[in-house]
Amino acid sequence: MSFTAYVLDVVSNTFFPARITVENGIFTEVTPITVNEKLNIDVKGLVIPGFIDSHIHIESSMITPAQFAKIAVRHGTTAVVADPHEIGNVLGIEGIEAMIENAKAVPFNFYFSAPSCVPATSFETSGAVIDSSDIEYLLKKDEIVALGEMMNFPGVINGDEEVLKKLELARQYGKPIDGHAPLLTREDLGKYLEQGISTDHECSNIIEAFEKKMKGMKIMVRDGSSAMDMEGLFNINHALENIENPEKLGVIFRDIFKKKVYSPLFDFIVSDDKHPDDLIKGHLNLSIKKATRLGIDILKAISMVTINPSRHYNLNCGAIVEGAKADYVIIDSICDFNILETYIGGECVFDGENVLFDAPEIDARNSINATKKSASDFDVLYDGDECEVNVIECFDGDLLTKKTTAKLRTKNGVVQSDSYNDILKISVVERYGGGNITNAFIKGFGLNKGAIASSVAHDSHNIIVIGYDSETMAQAVNKVIDDKGGIAVVSEDFNESLPLPIAGLMSNEDAYDVAHKLDILHKMASALGCKLKSPFMTMAFMALLVIPSIKISDMGLFDGEAFEFIDVIKN
Amino acid sequence: MSFTAYVLDVVSNTFFPARITVENGIFTEVTPITVNEKLNIDVKGLVIPGFIDSHIHIESSMITPAQFAKIAVRHGTTAVVADPHEIGNVLGIEGIEAMIENAKAVPFNFYFSAPSCVPATSFETSGAVIDSSDIEYLLKKDEIVALGEMMNFPGVINGDEEVLKKLELARQYGKPIDGHAPLLTREDLGKYLEQGISTDHECSNIIEAFEKKMKGMKIMVRDGSSAMDMEGLFNINHALENIENPEKLGVIFRDIFKKKVYSPLFDFIVSDDKHPDDLIKGHLNLSIKKATRLGIDILKAISMVTINPSRHYNLNCGAIVEGAKADYVIIDSICDFNILETYIGGECVFDGENVLFDAPEIDARNSINATKKSASDFDVLYDGDECEVNVIECFDGDLLTKKTTAKLRTKNGVVQSDSYNDILKISVVERYGGGNITNAFIKGFGLNKGAIASSVAHDSHNIIVIGYDSETMAQAVNKVIDDKGGIAVVSEDFNESLPLPIAGLMSNEDAYDVAHKLDILHKMASALGCKLKSPFMTMAFMALLVIPSIKISDMGLFDGEAFEFIDVIKN
Repeated sequence: MSFTAYVLDVVSNTFFPARITVENGIFTEVTPITVNEKLNIDVKGLVIPGFIDSHIHIESSMITPAQFAKIAVRHGTTAVVADPHEIGNVLGIEGIEAMIENAKAVPFNFYFSAPSCVPATSFETSGAVIDSSDIEYLLKKDEIVALGEMMNFPGVINGDEEVLKKLELARQYGKPIDGHAPLLTREDLGKYLEQGISTDHECSNIIEAFEKKMKGMKIMVRDGSSAMDMEGLFNINHALENIENPEKLGVIFRDIFKKKVYSPLFDFIVSDDKHPDDLIKGHLNLSIKKATRLGIDILKAISMVTINPSRHYNLNCGAIVEGAKADYVIIDSICDFNILETYIGGECVFDGENVLFDAPEIDARNSINATKKSASDFDVLYDGDECEVNVIECFDGDLLTKKTTAKLRTKNGVVQSDSYNDILKISVVERYGGGNITNAFIKGFGLNKGAIASSVAHDSHNIIVIGYDSETMAQAVNKVIDDKGGIAVVSEDFNESLPLPIAGLMSNEDAYDVAHKLDILHKMASALGCKLKSPFMTMAFMALLVIPSIKISDMGLFDGEAFEFIDVIKN
Repeated sequence: MSFTAYVLDVVSNTFFPARITVENGIFTEVTPITVNEKLNIDVKGLVIPGFIDSHIHIESSMITPAQFAKIAVRHGTTAVVADPHEIGNVLGIEGIEAMIENAKAVPFNFYFSAPSCVPATSFETSGAVIDSSDIEYLLKKDEIVALGEMMNFPGVINGDEEVLKKLELARQYGKPIDGHAPLLTREDLGKYLEQGISTDHECSNIIEAFEKKMKGMKIMVRDGSSAMDMEGLFNINHALENIENPEKLGVIFRDIFKKKVYSPLFDFIVSDDKHPDDLIKGHLNLSIKKATRLGIDILKAISMVTINPSRHYNLNCGAIVEGAKADYVIIDSICDFNILETYIGGECVFDGENVLFDAPEIDARNSINATKKSASDFDVLYDGDECEVNVIECFDGDLLTKKTTAKLRTKNGVVQSDSYNDILKISVVERYGGGNITNAFIKGFGLNKGAIASSVAHDSHNIIVIGYDSETMAQAVNKVIDDKGGIAVVSEDFNESLPLPIAGLMSNEDAYDVAHKLDILHKMASALGCKLKSPFMTMAFMALLVIPSIKISDMGLFDGEAFEFIDVIKN
């Protein structure tokens, strides 16, 4: 196949008309041409490399890799480096292999990393353990291009043997190691880096990014559904405010913000998590537009999702040069940045209207091993009229919580919610056959009746439920169990769910259907009084023990600062 | 040699600490590293690729290639694509080979283009003709990487046989063809491009650059001594003013200025001409700083003088990647951009204080073949008291002139200057043995006594002289002849010169000495009443026939719009 087109060259940082030839999925010719009156350019639009999301958990999109590919190509994405950390926590190697197999069935460049931290902590029950021998098994696979984000930085710093073994294996197999080290600094950061961990996607301010960059990390700027760090990093005024001590920048980079030459600081734009309702609107195409609005050069922005990740993970795509994989996108205009067509390996996969491949289903076993619950399973008992309880206070879409307390009344020995003060009940129901339940209290959701439940609850994905009363909480949890996983909203008026039968995390349906159902559930939660924009996402973070201050697991209420369990009822 | 350093990577558009190994002048290892507490970075500064000036006439610097290299490495320049068009006009192939030989004697990457347009016109006497067989002789040389700027665009458009033969030869030898086509547009531009001419450094406004870019030319943004187009092209407000009809931008690029995503429009930054007084202050290092002040991303600016020219001319330098020539520069800071050290092929050539190589001299034959002149040679005779004359009106540093007239008195049959109205005498003395002299009048120099003369007079470099009276004009010309070429200022009080014995264009002295002597001459011209900042440069353009409106050659006063000779004295 041979054609003429305007091409954006991310190596030379320019565009030009060119004759392009693709053979066997590879660019075999990219020759700049001149255009005279006789020559027409075949392609109506600008040809740019397909986008690469170098850090994403596909499970957060609640759809299979194949369905993810179908929606992603509409937005110009042609490759991802996916960390199957969520399914790894639920189904272990079996789940990861199901993801890889499903991914292989579609014409999309799926690369995976081996999840390094399963389970995330020992303070919760997960469905699987991925140990160093599993990691070696995974690293041997061609589809696995990296060791996934090393979230256990205390383990690295303190020399945990199993952690070090995993890192050693990645180095041995010559695969990059992704990092995850929010606010890690100075000597601790140095120890973390000694292990060859080379990326970080947790920087939320410029000084943090600067230190990590100077120490050799590649900075992934996150622009996803749950965390949007891009404004904090790219906004020059915000950056300047953050620099209390400009001398921290050192000689080489002093005044880079004042003189607006800070673009070399950043390496990749990643989404990390992209929820279905966001994913149907766009992906990295929107991130590029946002980056340019924030003052980043368009060429730099495009580099961050093309040639840079390609070079880091050795992907042989991400540039329209001879010898590279023919993954490209036609956009209408460099300003509007609408995706007209998407090509992978030289084949059209999105023609502007339709996606030209089918998504096979994942036929996963039921991962929910839990018996039906009754209302009393969710009761917090107290012998007295009133008690003081520890409360998780949460904020819309925020991973961080605040530890607070409340005085609650009892009724027949059962501690009651207090909708006037927005103190609701929260429980985590173990779903891996053990039967644990932890019941506690939460502030911030605003429900004045009913309950919401979900089997998406980071990182172990037990069933989490928040509600006004034990009865609807039991109904919501049972609905999730009946669905083999999913999200449910239950009240006198509602009994609706989004089934996520694949590991309790994903649906075989397409992104639009899943987003639509999620939208219905959002509206129902809202009708029940919930003030949060993202109640299910916020709820899912309430079980993420590694992020302070106070969280909940199936084993108990957890103080993330002291890193220990605490009592629900204060003595 | 192996060391650790912070490296600016122009392929990935980022920087990182790396271990760098250089063997036999080539980067054999560029490995990103992480930096912990134990590791020191060897290099104090940031390692960036050496700069490449992809279009320069070294003769304009009035020094030899070797001396040019000595000053250029102080500014971080490690390579140039030089068009020896000036010496070609004077000495032909012999001169070009002297340049190449001198260039080879120093550790600097000199690449040359074969001058395509010698002589520039048939309306002047030049020292040489470079025909298509000479071009073939030159294109066979490894040092010649391109066919030099094709200024004869009428010849291309009208299908001049000899011109087409030169272009065909360049295509045959697989060497890029540089363009020079100010304001060429639409069908004429299309015909020009059919010949495979692929660069243009003459764009002075954004619409012109846009059309040429869309048609496949690579845009060289000029930031030199005589022409500074950078402000016109990079300044966003200026760009917006220039766009009267935004629809001209077409669909793909509409709103690129409004949305500030216009950086892909530009390919290279070049100097074209760099005079000694400017060259001692800086070179492309200053252009990069200026570009960032004008809003161009620092990475884009650096790309324009590193990887982009390297890819276009197949130079295997311009990036710090494995397999590339180890040409690099250490700068103190990405903002201040001071050059600390310069390396070529892995060898230090500038250590921050001294240049570590010597510049051999060019032992050129005397190129001035002209007999001494007497005052009467410069007389314009008229039989009457007063006559009306055609006058060249010039403007400081401008190639363009305006045709005007003046009434002048005679004395003993000789037409006199009129210093009150700033009408001076101008003459061009042929210096290739033929003995032609043309005498005419010029407005704009402001001399109220004395004369200035120079053998630098584009493109044929005959001796040009401007003065108040015939006597000092003869003395000034004779001084230039005695010096075997150069620039002279002569009056009652002054008799000073800058000898340029190499083709009447260059000195074997170093840039500082030449700049110093030029500075003295500037001050003398100023003392004689000259108001121009650059009198010698402006004077040198007065013989450049291809730029309108009215110029002078050894053959006569020339109307550049009608493209014919006109009389000095109006009938």
